[in-house]
Amino acid sequence: MTVEASFARLRDRIESQLDAALPSPADAPRRLHQAMRHSVLGGGKRMRPLLVHAAGEVFGTDPHRLDAPAMAVELIHAYSLVHDDLPAMDDDALRRGKPTTHIAFDEATAILAGDALQTRAFSLLAEAALPAELRVACLQSLAHAAGAAGMCGGQALDIDATGQLQSLEALTRMHALKTGALIRAAVRMGALCGHAPEADLARLDRFADALGLAFQVRDDILDVEASSEQLGKTAGKDVAQDKSTFPALLGMDGAKAKLAELSAVMHEALAAYGEEANALRALGRLAIERDH
Amino acid sequence: MTVEASFARLRDRIESQLDAALPSPADAPRRLHQAMRHSVLGGGKRMRPLLVHAAGEVFGTDPHRLDAPAMAVELIHAYSLVHDDLPAMDDDALRRGKPTTHIAFDEATAILAGDALQTRAFSLLAEAALPAELRVACLQSLAHAAGAAGMCGGQALDIDATGQLQSLEALTRMHALKTGALIRAAVRMGALCGHAPEADLARLDRFADALGLAFQVRDDILDVEASSEQLGKTAGKDVAQDKSTFPALLGMDGAKAKLAELSAVMHEALAAYGEEANALRALGRLAIERDH
Repeated sequence: MTVEASFARLRDRIESQLDAALPSPADAPRRLHQAMRHSVLGGGKRMRPLLVHAAGEVFGTDPHRLDAPAMAVELIHAYSLVHDDLPAMDDDALRRGKPTTHIAFDEATAILAGDALQTRAFSLLAEAALPAELRVACLQSLAHAAGAAGMCGGQALDIDATGQLQSLEALTRMHALKTGALIRAAVRMGALCGHAPEADLARLDRFADALGLAFQVRDDILDVEASSEQLGKTAGKDVAQDKSTFPALLGMDGAKAKLAELSAVMHEALAAYGEEANALRALGRLAIERDH
Repeated sequence: MTVEASFARLRDRIESQLDAALPSPADAPRRLHQAMRHSVLGGGKRMRPLLVHAAGEVFGTDPHRLDAPAMAVELIHAYSLVHDDLPAMDDDALRRGKPTTHIAFDEATAILAGDALQTRAFSLLAEAALPAELRVACLQSLAHAAGAAGMCGGQALDIDATGQLQSLEALTRMHALKTGALIRAAVRMGALCGHAPEADLARLDRFADALGLAFQVRDDILDVEASSEQLGKTAGKDVAQDKSTFPALLGMDGAKAKLAELSAVMHEALAAYGEEANALRALGRLAIERDH
């Protein structure tokens, strides 16, 4: 099976498991349940759950052990998009080619749906069919990545910086928290479920940090070069919202050179592994080469 | 020491531990950290953390074992207030005698601060100095109570019902989720940390469910009878927002009779215990007799 075919199968697996993990749209409170499902199902690259599975694969981990962490990290990601899209935040109407949750439902429901999705991420891990020690290790990793010292902190730095020209260092730090922390947690949870030794965890952190940054540099490039239709979300909004971006600070050529540099870091971080790391390598390439 | 003096000491303990568990107001992102601290510190009855400690006391639990669950349940409660007060939800300007978080800061920061407080609740439990099995049991209990099948679901039912006359059964169910679930989790986490047997857990659930409902009936009564100054939040808003309440459905005398009935249920649920349950009994009385 090609890596791409294996990703397609995994995406189906993740979709059907998320479907089963979310409350039924027929049960009360229906509007909340429907908004939760709208925010999660039927789209998305599933980059983070794929990273959980790919990192687990490096250590020959049974995929069943990886299902709960894979779902949990995707639910955290999904909740953050719902809240980021709110009028008081980025005020966005389009996401994954569909109306954002507060447009499809209403603001109050979107706030609540995001809240309940975050809770569901942690309850899934707490209930996972894994040893308690491992559940706790995954919970620590995910919660640290999602909170004030991670994703929420990065989003706050992003808001603080809107309308100001940021230094490359500040921009890199903001993205390391806003998107990098969760990507690192995805890789780390996969490795933890495979009982990876410390030395491997450090290597995979290095890989994940480079991938997280590459993902964001590519995002900034696509925001300039791609259409809204291609992205499934509003294009050109970084410039419209006066946000600092890598192309703005480095030029478009400089941003593309940065991607090549990060590609080399990812390659080097995985140099110790053979084909068991091919799925991780493929996700690294995807982050850099994707067109949406 | 009287029960009241012991509660005052516990409130100080909880306050200083929450202070230490929240990120420093001097560190970036400062606005987020300050908003998180504004939302949690310097006020509140601390009913839920006191319930954790009181339930633990029934089983002679070392108070140090109860600190993390006590903080975690208070952080979930605090985040829910921040989000409930948002303009898209209850649109409230006053809470615990202070401006609500979106008034003192801004809406985006309030959304993020609430999100980060929820995450911090779960990370505190995941990092607690308790056996992993117990951390997981507390996490399951708290996450179940906070999510779509608990607090968030109750809030959604509340929004759905605004402007409609609810049946007593529907109103009771809404409150059982919106406030009852978290109160039950507080009591249950305290009991779990004390290694309470199943029979005791069932008794304490019965106590907690009666207390949760009594708390809400009293809240509805105070919303009619007390001033905003006395409550530290906007009084009279149930009528203003056209919400169903116990006094509206039962009459004021009927609501007060309901309180007496719930008091009897609490008394009966704790009948098997001696003075080790006095703190729980005192919290039950407080829920019914409080004037703010």
